[in-house]
Amino acid sequence: MLEYLYPARTYLIVSGREKPNVMTADWVTALSFSPAMLGVAIGHTRYTHKLIKKYKEFVVAVPTIELLKDVWTAGTASGADRDKTEILALTFIPSKKVATPSIKECQANIECKVVNEVETGDHTFFVGEIVDASYGDAFRRGVDLSYRFILHADFGKRFTTNTSEIYEP
Amino acid sequence: MLEYLYPARTYLIVSGREKPNVMTADWVTALSFSPAMLGVAIGHTRYTHKLIKKYKEFVVAVPTIELLKDVWTAGTASGADRDKTEILALTFIPSKKVATPSIKECQANIECKVVNEVETGDHTFFVGEIVDASYGDAFRRGVDLSYRFILHADFGKRFTTNTSEIYEP
Repeated sequence: MLEYLYPARTYLIVSGREKPNVMTADWVTALSFSPAMLGVAIGHTRYTHKLIKKYKEFVVAVPTIELLKDVWTAGTASGADRDKTEILALTFIPSKKVATPSIKECQANIECKVVNEVETGDHTFFVGEIVDASYGDAFRRGVDLSYRFILHADFGKRFTTNTSEIYEP
Repeated sequence: MLEYLYPARTYLIVSGREKPNVMTADWVTALSFSPAMLGVAIGHTRYTHKLIKKYKEFVVAVPTIELLKDVWTAGTASGADRDKTEILALTFIPSKKVATPSIKECQANIECKVVNEVETGDHTFFVGEIVDASYGDAFRRGVDLSYRFILHADFGKRFTTNTSEIYEP
């Protein structure tokens, strides 16, 4: 019944330090304006789960549709088996306030420190306080809807994007 | 920095029983496949916060762009001041497993019982176990992207939708 929440925005979660790992995640939400907080649910079996548990920090990176191939690879290959940085065409750059790197090609990188971990069934919900962020042209003047952010259609291989049309009630 | 997570899917949260209340919420995420769980962050000052605290259940309803006017009203008027059901063109129908009603005009209604409440800054994150759900044509054969689900562009009055284009990596 979770599919009724779809299509859902798709993000990349960066974890780890010297050997960073990237996974794709749809289960991300804002949580608080002040302090600024967000949360991400990560499956217990994921390598990212282990890395966030260890370093207590992560970066939420915001890809656009041009990065779809890497988004798919990051969501299907496991960093436990291989160094994902070798198979992804993504550039890791230093973050500002956390040791976990950011992704150059993404339109935003939101740097988070874990302040709470909540067990929710087969996932852990990591609550992060946002300590800093960097952004690209898509966010220079508010949220620019001419950029095509990624939506996962369901739990399979179909993706879509937002339109650039604006509706005002 | 939360705006970097936008555009974000917009849902309706139904709470209360005899006098149900509806609010608009972007801060909703899936949390677990088994058991099926989702979470929603509700501001401390919201009337919905009081009602979910009281009844320990809520319904996540999935509107499409045709309902944008009501989505906006539900997100800006407070149920503490007035009975929102009187100003919304929405039809409340019985849910299957919770006493909180569903919304007839929505494409899905996900019925949740609260299993955990997590304080996250200025919001409470209500963790719900999904106990049942009903759905419309948009979900009869998977997620039908020809339906225009609502995305909130940012924290203001701009909304957009998904396209019907499908991308496969």
